Amino acid sequence: MDGKATSEIKPTWPVNTWYVACTPEEIADRPLGRTICGERMVIFRGPDGRAAALEDFCPHRGAPLSLGFVREGQLVCGYHGLTVDCRGKVAGMPGQKVGGFPAARRFAVIERYGFIWVWPGDAEAADPAKLHHLAWAESDEWAYGGGYFHIACDYRLMIDNLMDLTHETYVHASSIGQKEIDEAPVRTRADETEVVTSRFMEGVKAPPFWRMALRGAGLPEDATVDRWQLCRFSLPSHVMIEVGVALEGHGGYDAPDAAKASSIVVDFITPETETSHHYFWGMARRFGVDDPALTDTIREGQHKIFSEDLEMLEMQQANLLRWPERRLLKLNIDAGGVRSRMMIDRAIAAGTA
Amino acid sequence: MDGKATSEIKPTWPVNTWYVACTPEEIADRPLGRTICGERMVIFRGPDGRAAALEDFCPHRGAPLSLGFVREGQLVCGYHGLTVDCRGKVAGMPGQKVGGFPAARRFAVIERYGFIWVWPGDAEAADPAKLHHLAWAESDEWAYGGGYFHIACDYRLMIDNLMDLTHETYVHASSIGQKEIDEAPVRTRADETEVVTSRFMEGVKAPPFWRMALRGAGLPEDATVDRWQLCRFSLPSHVMIEVGVALEGHGGYDAPDAAKASSIVVDFITPETETSHHYFWGMARRFGVDDPALTDTIREGQHKIFSEDLEMLEMQQANLLRWPERRLLKLNIDAGGVRSRMMIDRAIAAGTA
Amino acid sequence: MDGKATSEIKPTWPVNTWYVACTPEEIADRPLGRTICGERMVIFRGPDGRAAALEDFCPHRGAPLSLGFVREGQLVCGYHGLTVDCRGKVAGMPGQKVGGFPAARRFAVIERYGFIWVWPGDAEAADPAKLHHLAWAESDEWAYGGGYFHIACDYRLMIDNLMDLTHETYVHASSIGQKEIDEAPVRTRADETEVVTSRFMEGVKAPPFWRMALRGAGLPEDATVDRWQLCRFSLPSHVMIEVGVALEGHGGYDAPDAAKASSIVVDFITPETETSHHYFWGMARRFGVDDPALTDTIREGQHKIFSEDLEMLEMQQANLLRWPERRLLKLNIDAGGVRSRMMIDRAIAAGTA
Repeated sequence: MDGKATSEIKPTWPVNTWYVACTPEEIADRPLGRTICGERMVIFRGPDGRAAALEDFCPHRGAPLSLGFVREGQLVCGYHGLTVDCRGKVAGMPGQKVGGFPAARRFAVIERYGFIWVWPGDAEAADPAKLHHLAWAESDEWAYGGGYFHIACDYRLMIDNLMDLTHETYVHASSIGQKEIDEAPVRTRADETEVVTSRFMEGVKAPPFWRMALRGAGLPEDATVDRWQLCRFSLPSHVMIEVGVALEGHGGYDAPDAAKASSIVVDFITPETETSHHYFWGMARRFGVDDPALTDTIREGQHKIFSEDLEMLEMQQANLLRWPERRLLKLNIDAGGVRSRMMIDRAIAAGTA
Repeated sequence: MDGKATSEIKPTWPVNTWYVACTPEEIADRPLGRTICGERMVIFRGPDGRAAALEDFCPHRGAPLSLGFVREGQLVCGYHGLTVDCRGKVAGMPGQKVGGFPAARRFAVIERYGFIWVWPGDAEAADPAKLHHLAWAESDEWAYGGGYFHIACDYRLMIDNLMDLTHETYVHASSIGQKEIDEAPVRTRADETEVVTSRFMEGVKAPPFWRMALRGAGLPEDATVDRWQLCRFSLPSHVMIEVGVALEGHGGYDAPDAAKASSIVVDFITPETETSHHYFWGMARRFGVDDPALTDTIREGQHKIFSEDLEMLEMQQANLLRWPERRLLKLNIDAGGVRSRMMIDRAIAAGTA
Repeated sequence: MDGKATSEIKPTWPVNTWYVACTPEEIADRPLGRTICGERMVIFRGPDGRAAALEDFCPHRGAPLSLGFVREGQLVCGYHGLTVDCRGKVAGMPGQKVGGFPAARRFAVIERYGFIWVWPGDAEAADPAKLHHLAWAESDEWAYGGGYFHIACDYRLMIDNLMDLTHETYVHASSIGQKEIDEAPVRTRADETEVVTSRFMEGVKAPPFWRMALRGAGLPEDATVDRWQLCRFSLPSHVMIEVGVALEGHGGYDAPDAAKASSIVVDFITPETETSHHYFWGMARRFGVDDPALTDTIREGQHKIFSEDLEMLEMQQANLLRWPERRLLKLNIDAGGVRSRMMIDRAIAAGTA
């Protein structure tokens, strides 16, 4: 296979692992062309509606298959009608015997937890069992809403961002930031499967986003609260952040549901190129689960917040390209990102994720 | 001459031949700057309104001469007033003796058949007799209308496109495409001067574009028809496509005028860079010749159709740049393009067109 | 310091000299990120409102400091709150001991004559005494108005432009151009500190811009006038152009104030990259000094005029990049630019300006 050389020369991401490729909505009406880990793919629904991914290159004349359409579970090239099945085998072409036609490379795909996942490396080695279990995605006790951003920066800068929430005080001063965040001590620990950075703030006032959440949970928005943030990184590039506020003195993170508003900030970070990535963000929550209007309100709030990150991250990337040889500081607050990158590097070196 | 090196290192087009440079309308009010076969030119009308082309570079300070204006048949630089004649000789400059000034390179130009033609190679070798005769452009029995697109792809991808109309079934499904096209056998033959790909479909229903043409020709649009397509490639990169429908059983391509609607799809394809070209498209027809409203209707129809090609071709080009080493298939339907490219390669090797 | 290599390999500008960096308005509300002589800087007001400039790169994680804010005279990084003082020393960061943090490079800055000036080279060598004295900027007898353009061309093409006003006849035909300009002889002289190109036109009619100025000065706009232009280049890249018209026969340039409308076209030209610069333009005038509406009218007129230059210069730059090896002519009218460039080259060679 003569894929893109970029990632082969100097790999910056593991490829034998599951990444979020897209949401079901993105392939509802037509095939989707998307580059993941340097591989240009077309993602579509094959027979019985099962999601599939192929190299986005028609073996006939090189047109993007993503400009075509799906007919009876097969992908039809929109240029001259060559048809491939969901494993990339050429199934037919008007007036042609296609037996000797080369196949389009296929990528392993599974659909789970409301997302389409792709394994950009060796399709034969793809193992659905290696996908993390996401309890919130399967339980009626949780509600989920989210969105998508394309961001022009190395996906690891986003991991750094999410594993050090100190930045909330500065980047998100008007929504979730508050002075107590960068004053509270941060602790980072890692084991075989995850890196966790945690921060606890006791006896603080809730910032605007959390005031809204308290209202949504039927709690007084003006109350003094205990606030927590636990950022959990796992391979290849997922960051699940447990966040919440509890009425002061009820146990904080461990408080009973009735005394807190808590949720998980969900971040699936899928590399596109060396300097860009796909960012699937959202929030899974345990309060106001049956309130779709609240889901919309939260989505709007997150959209605004992550837009602020987007600007900062793209400008940081531009600056790093301007000064490519400058070494950055690795402070205690950066430990979450630093250790996450170490876990990524080990996975790349091992050829597995 | 220190022109662009791109085309000299690895020529992808013949240069000692005539290409359409522009339409008369494009130089009616002011000089036109345009790159043709990698050569940046200014095209304007010199003495007696004769079209001329020079390198678009003022010998004084390098300003584009195309930003200037024409005064008494001479081109005046819009920066400091240096004046060149239509052969590139510096004719004057306020307060300066210009005898020793270097000339601007000139390109041979002729105006014929409603177009301005340029010879991007050796101007001294330019021979107007080498321009093809276009009977339809000189006869009152034909009407013509057309337009222009700038397309970001190798000009040879457009030749491929036009020499294999199988794509109409897919790219132009809503206008000229129909299932019978890719089911009908295609035949390609070549001689010293042209490559011809032909396809005949008998006893079919006319698709929307041809229903409109049947109406324009005073024939019943619902009639069963015989349809034909003869794609004629000639050097350097012209594709004239004889197309038409005749009432079934009247002889098809050879049917009398009263029983058919026929026309020539006119395609002049002028390389700009390695990955872009100028596309002059139009239709010469023998029906409804005195109906300018029909000319407009056809132009609008072609504009929509060729816009669909534009999108596909630019995405195909992007894909080929993504996978530069991938080899494409050469099927029987591709024979027209393959043999046209062989004719181009022979012309480049011979140094003539 | 590992700044940008571009200017170090092949310097095209002096760095140990003062350039206009911005206007006070540009840093009134927030820090400004700007590249000057290839150096990316953040410009802001430190303690007591004094302007300062630092490398626009946070020592922590490389975010642009220009996305941050000023708090008590210190610049706070907008990502994680690292704080630098106006000399680039890290002053603090929440929860961190910053004693060993590397400093951000600082650039010397002074504020004078209504502009913020920066010395892009060695800050320790910066000498405020080396800034030119601008009498018009300090006197109540003068009024000033101006604006800013970002122009995508080598700053020296702008110097050429301003040191040869022959182009006014062509580029500015509808405002300040007139046939007599390129017919009048031009004279260039140079000494240790400046290059001066002068042109005098006697007994002419005022073009539209100067008719407006005559009205503003309370003089008859239809009068026959003597007109003058003295273009004064001084290092590193300032061009002050004394321009005016006097009622015919009153002494021209030396006429008494009551018989003339005169002004200085002010041009501060600050290199950004090899192919772009910051252009601070304006007009200092001695007529209608107390008329702010006239200042606005003149600013609008200059805006239109310099927009015409912008288009020509950017197209000239594109053409020079297209033909990088082509040599340009150096005519008598070009002597002002040629000698200015020689003065620049000597300053670069000497390492001083």
